[in-house]
Amino acid sequence: MPISFNLPPAARPGQPADTIDTPSLVLDLDTFTRNVERMQAAADHAGVKLRPHAKAHKCPDIALAQVARGAVGICCQKVSEAVPFVRAGIADIHISNEIAGPAKASLLAQLARHARISVCVDDASQIDALAAAAKAAGSRLDVFVEVDVGQNRCGVAGAPAVLKLVERIAAHASLALRGLQAYHGGIQHLRGWAARREAAARTAERTGAVIARLEAAGVRCDVVTGGGSGSVEFDLGSGVYTEIQPGSYVFMDADYGSNDYAGTLRFEHSLFIATTVMSVAAGDRVVLDAGLKSMAVDSGLPWIWADGAASATLDYVAANDEHGIVKPRQAGQVAALPALGSRVMLVPGHCDPTLNLYDEIVGVRGGVVEAVWPVAARGLSR
Amino acid sequence: MPISFNLPPAARPGQPADTIDTPSLVLDLDTFTRNVERMQAAADHAGVKLRPHAKAHKCPDIALAQVARGAVGICCQKVSEAVPFVRAGIADIHISNEIAGPAKASLLAQLARHARISVCVDDASQIDALAAAAKAAGSRLDVFVEVDVGQNRCGVAGAPAVLKLVERIAAHASLALRGLQAYHGGIQHLRGWAARREAAARTAERTGAVIARLEAAGVRCDVVTGGGSGSVEFDLGSGVYTEIQPGSYVFMDADYGSNDYAGTLRFEHSLFIATTVMSVAAGDRVVLDAGLKSMAVDSGLPWIWADGAASATLDYVAANDEHGIVKPRQAGQVAALPALGSRVMLVPGHCDPTLNLYDEIVGVRGGVVEAVWPVAARGLSR
Repeated sequence: MPISFNLPPAARPGQPADTIDTPSLVLDLDTFTRNVERMQAAADHAGVKLRPHAKAHKCPDIALAQVARGAVGICCQKVSEAVPFVRAGIADIHISNEIAGPAKASLLAQLARHARISVCVDDASQIDALAAAAKAAGSRLDVFVEVDVGQNRCGVAGAPAVLKLVERIAAHASLALRGLQAYHGGIQHLRGWAARREAAARTAERTGAVIARLEAAGVRCDVVTGGGSGSVEFDLGSGVYTEIQPGSYVFMDADYGSNDYAGTLRFEHSLFIATTVMSVAAGDRVVLDAGLKSMAVDSGLPWIWADGAASATLDYVAANDEHGIVKPRQAGQVAALPALGSRVMLVPGHCDPTLNLYDEIVGVRGGVVEAVWPVAARGLSR
Repeated sequence: MPISFNLPPAARPGQPADTIDTPSLVLDLDTFTRNVERMQAAADHAGVKLRPHAKAHKCPDIALAQVARGAVGICCQKVSEAVPFVRAGIADIHISNEIAGPAKASLLAQLARHARISVCVDDASQIDALAAAAKAAGSRLDVFVEVDVGQNRCGVAGAPAVLKLVERIAAHASLALRGLQAYHGGIQHLRGWAARREAAARTAERTGAVIARLEAAGVRCDVVTGGGSGSVEFDLGSGVYTEIQPGSYVFMDADYGSNDYAGTLRFEHSLFIATTVMSVAAGDRVVLDAGLKSMAVDSGLPWIWADGAASATLDYVAANDEHGIVKPRQAGQVAALPALGSRVMLVPGHCDPTLNLYDEIVGVRGGVVEAVWPVAARGLSR
């Protein structure tokens, strides 16, 4: 007998939120919108441009919402990741990363025929490869020199190395220097507010020193891009960045939720994983239907979310492939455990790689499914 | 201008393996085939049926290869995961897990109109829900009672609890008791061979004790299913299991590779992540284009694979979202670091959730791409 049915969707617009099939990624649209508008207002107030990072959401519907509220474009972290955003009409995309290999340079140069595209470099050979690809495609690529401001990952250290790459860029008619990228990922997750402020200040100082040396050499950086959801409140006032590139603020995962916030720029948890209790047989714990294939655990296990806050009585203590183990925080308090078949909402530990597991985001408002948005760039890591 | 191109595929059959775009999941087909045949031969020799777990690969092409060599069917861990395998013509699928909610029971009952389908239970309410769904769909579901044999996750403990569920199953004409599931995931990863043998023996003893009590009560278990890639060499000789359900053996990840093996049943690493060095600017380390979105790190970071073995000179020391940091094992030995643009192969730490990140497996043989297999069940965790 031929297979005459498709897998039913996890959710359809109009259905009650508590009937979404699980595990599913659920976005509280009111909270999400507040986050988007709060970041935009902070950037506008500081006179700094906002270029949100799409590696956090991989979702053209979200990028369009960000641009509609004033974002100048988006960042992507990989070339292939940019494809669905170009298709969706995002007109200005920065690849906030170096790329390797002629296939990626060629794809990037093709994309530059449809949108303004920029990319980072930290080696002369990358510049030559980009120039050749853009020339072959009849397009132009904007280039940022990435400066290592303390993360010790990508980027060159110090103005002399930057200047060499700037000269190399200038030698190619198919490339245009757009400015500097100065991003420090490690400081985003420093827990203490003062520690983050101090680290962001050091990062800005290093960046400012390079800019001053470049200006003394007659090189002007139109754009200085950097900053993440953990540092933007400091980056906005640094006087160094012309553009910030936070991503996670739209969702706020448990990791960012574990940072201390003393300032006024705070974001709310909008992203949840809807799960169901699938076994209570063990008695002292219950098993959820969401494990390693439904969430990234690299930054810690998820929070259990109940009544608008992280649960004070239940912990998600272990993730197997398709099972999540929940125990009472106080041993023996099994009365606090949810019943078989009941629904449990989680805040994922790390939003970016969690989004990368799902094909759809289910948007809810007022207890009803309002939209189902494709995570169109899911899996696009090339 | 309309977007007139698609994202080029990472690989096409016939192209040299060292030109596959990165990051990509690469399967050495000769090694893979040896693994498949070795497990089948071991099961055949023991007179035990092999029902490989498809949660490891999520790939119908691999399931068909396993069935073609003698597997009696496959296991899936979720209902939705089974859909592409039913479509591909796999005729006998066991959901080695409990399910929650009427949507899943209904889908399962629909699938049972196209293939022989079984599922686990550890609560009376699950049995009633399955029976109602099967009755409504005009199909029949086979049911396994899951026994907790020490993992303390799902399953009921002890024969009296099993017997209660057996009676409940017997009360429904749309259900048929097929047997017991007795699986202990935790013991698969005990590093020492003797420790795994001892743990597998205890698991088999517990299972055997339940079977004896059931037989004394007049209940015969046609099938006793369990065992994983870390315990099968002991399970096959236990006299308790009629069927084994290993999954990872086809690939062998770094975690299973870290187990000690003293017996004769050993498997080889067949699964790799092809990556490219994208930055060397830091000097004391290099950066690969594969991070958290290209591999699961819950069971540890990947091995660097060179010349048929784990590298003795280089370590993958940190995974960011789209970056992998590689350092020399001996500080200062930077001459061992690969050059910008060069290719680095990794053995992932945990194969199951790594497969769940990719849409395709690139099969290679003799240095040439031979097949590109869809990971059709990727993301199907409902």
